[in-house]
Amino acid sequence: MPHSHDHIVKSYDDELKRLDGEIIRMGQVAVAQLDAAIDVLQRRDTQAAMRVVANDEAIDTLEHEVSHDVLRLLALRQPMARDLREVYAALRISSDIERIGDYAANVAKRSMVLNQTAPVSAARGLPALAKLANALVTEALDAYRERDADRALAVRGRDVEIDAEYTGLFRELLTYMAEDPRQITACTHLLFIAKNIERIGDHATNIAENTWFLVHGELPQGDREKGDLTSQVTDGQ
Amino acid sequence: MPHSHDHIVKSYDDELKRLDGEIIRMGQVAVAQLDAAIDVLQRRDTQAAMRVVANDEAIDTLEHEVSHDVLRLLALRQPMARDLREVYAALRISSDIERIGDYAANVAKRSMVLNQTAPVSAARGLPALAKLANALVTEALDAYRERDADRALAVRGRDVEIDAEYTGLFRELLTYMAEDPRQITACTHLLFIAKNIERIGDHATNIAENTWFLVHGELPQGDREKGDLTSQVTDGQ
Repeated sequence: MPHSHDHIVKSYDDELKRLDGEIIRMGQVAVAQLDAAIDVLQRRDTQAAMRVVANDEAIDTLEHEVSHDVLRLLALRQPMARDLREVYAALRISSDIERIGDYAANVAKRSMVLNQTAPVSAARGLPALAKLANALVTEALDAYRERDADRALAVRGRDVEIDAEYTGLFRELLTYMAEDPRQITACTHLLFIAKNIERIGDHATNIAENTWFLVHGELPQGDREKGDLTSQVTDGQ
Repeated sequence: MPHSHDHIVKSYDDELKRLDGEIIRMGQVAVAQLDAAIDVLQRRDTQAAMRVVANDEAIDTLEHEVSHDVLRLLALRQPMARDLREVYAALRISSDIERIGDYAANVAKRSMVLNQTAPVSAARGLPALAKLANALVTEALDAYRERDADRALAVRGRDVEIDAEYTGLFRELLTYMAEDPRQITACTHLLFIAKNIERIGDHATNIAENTWFLVHGELPQGDREKGDLTSQVTDGQ
């Protein structure tokens, strides 16, 4: 009875699809977590922020499942060529999504501290930054789901938008701190929140690069602009 | 002539050793980079800081070599059981070392900005934090080199020391900023430098956990305390 056997021993193809589904699901949870983190930050909702922090475990669990399935596939199916790249990319991308989830949870955690102090108007710039990051992660995950290398490459170029927005916010927060030293602690948490979101953009870029690699078997050409212009911000600028 | 053949087609064992050597070398470069970054920060040496930033490329190149060799090994040797875990751990650990290198380079980059302003006495706490992080990374890499899971597990427990030291420094920097708003920009860079070093501790822990996994085929039991107590720092505390 080959059919009943099929239900127990899944096909190689099913196992690859399962892996793909886990990555898509991880990505959806991470994007939802980032949305929720910014929402609770804006609404100053500590209860909801605690739920965002707790939900991060779901992403960690999914990452463990991906690792487990990757090792199983490598051991039992010994994938080659494109299949091997599928498995490799899944492992890499799951680790980027896990980091995105961590950053979202950290945003929610810091928002709880901010709720203990008066609202800081400099926080107004954060939703726009988060929206950019969220769009980039969503686009990177869509490119991965479609195995669309060109779409992935376009994501890579857009990380500079986030870096520019982040730099503006960084300077604005420094100005607020200088003008009102009572806001220093709150603004410091906002700085780290902004930095978390900027890092999420970097991980979207990683997802895009791994998608390109999955399709083409090599990394995209040309250096990507790495990171954060605020490392060079001085008082004089 | 089997001997001349041996020179061209390396043995499986040689390939695994080569991978191991690449990880060890990557780790040595990363530890040296962290040392150098703190040294240039203390000496306020912008020229030397630029060299640290440029040297990060060596680590990125090594990471690409590791990825390449991992994919080659998986495709051609189809490793099983312990060998598969060797390859998997090498991939994971190389990615943690690459991040440690990035953080070290970012410390050096920010030190160049600090050289454009008057020295901030709050910077004095950084070398002690960096020393803890460096010791932890070195210990994690030694545990990996010796394939010593118990030694790796001890690393995991010591990350709390870094977190405690970081929290102290974080509060100190906030106090400095409040007392002298002219130091806000410099102290912000110091906050991010401290955060980078704290993150290096997390990556040392990851290396340790992957070493445990390599030996035992499962992750160590018990939750590890993840991250950074300063996410909860308020003015009142």
